[in-house]
Amino acid sequence: MNSKLDEDGWSPQGPVTELAEEHCWEFLQRSSVGRLAVSVQDRPAIFPVNFSCDGHTILFRTSAGAKLSDLQANEFVAFEADEHTSRQSLSVIVEGRAHQLTEAAEISAADRASLPMWIPVAVPVYVRITPISVRGRRFTHSLISTHAE
Amino acid sequence: MNSKLDEDGWSPQGPVTELAEEHCWEFLQRSSVGRLAVSVQDRPAIFPVNFSCDGHTILFRTSAGAKLSDLQANEFVAFEADEHTSRQSLSVIVEGRAHQLTEAAEISAADRASLPMWIPVAVPVYVRITPISVRGRRFTHSLISTHAE
Repeated sequence: MNSKLDEDGWSPQGPVTELAEEHCWEFLQRSSVGRLAVSVQDRPAIFPVNFSCDGHTILFRTSAGAKLSDLQANEFVAFEADEHTSRQSLSVIVEGRAHQLTEAAEISAADRASLPMWIPVAVPVYVRITPISVRGRRFTHSLISTHAE
Repeated sequence: MNSKLDEDGWSPQGPVTELAEEHCWEFLQRSSVGRLAVSVQDRPAIFPVNFSCDGHTILFRTSAGAKLSDLQANEFVAFEADEHTSRQSLSVIVEGRAHQLTEAAEISAADRASLPMWIPVAVPVYVRITPISVRGRRFTHSLISTHAE
């Protein structure tokens, strides 16, 4: 029994599987939409982002604005991507540091990366999240209508 | 032209629609999976949650653990739910305060609410997010392979 499951409030008796880190990256590599959580003056904010994996880092494109300002104020971020089917849910959480790409070579490489966008941004900048921790869990659905007494 | 779109780095020329608050709630009412962002000592964390709407508040169930401790340390939270089709993405962000339900009447009402769970939790507690702000946006997809110079 994994004590982390207890600690985080996920049922130790429930069908929860911790993913190996390599499986977390496999999932992230086939995903393209995630959510970025940032904190400024201890107030959390959350943004949906299109992303791609570049090795074991997360790369996304943004432009000057609140999101970038927040990252410049506090480099520590949390990132989540998930997937849901009728039978299970899968969620991967990356905690790490975010920094804007400034080297020409890095920017060129990011330009070549397959980075989907919902919409064009006027002056794109690239941000890379370098992980401190990566964690993934698979939840097999077992909908229950009553809670434990 | 909406200056908030500029400010947040979403393209002012892109096909982005701000949702009216009532449409944000309609979307939240038909959604069941979201992500909760919290901040503890200015470090953001993110958790996937099953939720339901109770009026214009967000209700979710958890148990003693890291998520609940984080909420007790800092009541300010951000919450996001989104939906993606091949043609568009829709994302709603709620910023607000979270508090654990402690009144018996509130807990009974929450028990009766339709609150899906991925897995049973041993000692459930209910947490309500009371919004400070609600914002939703619809992004019509226009994948582009090159960025603006």
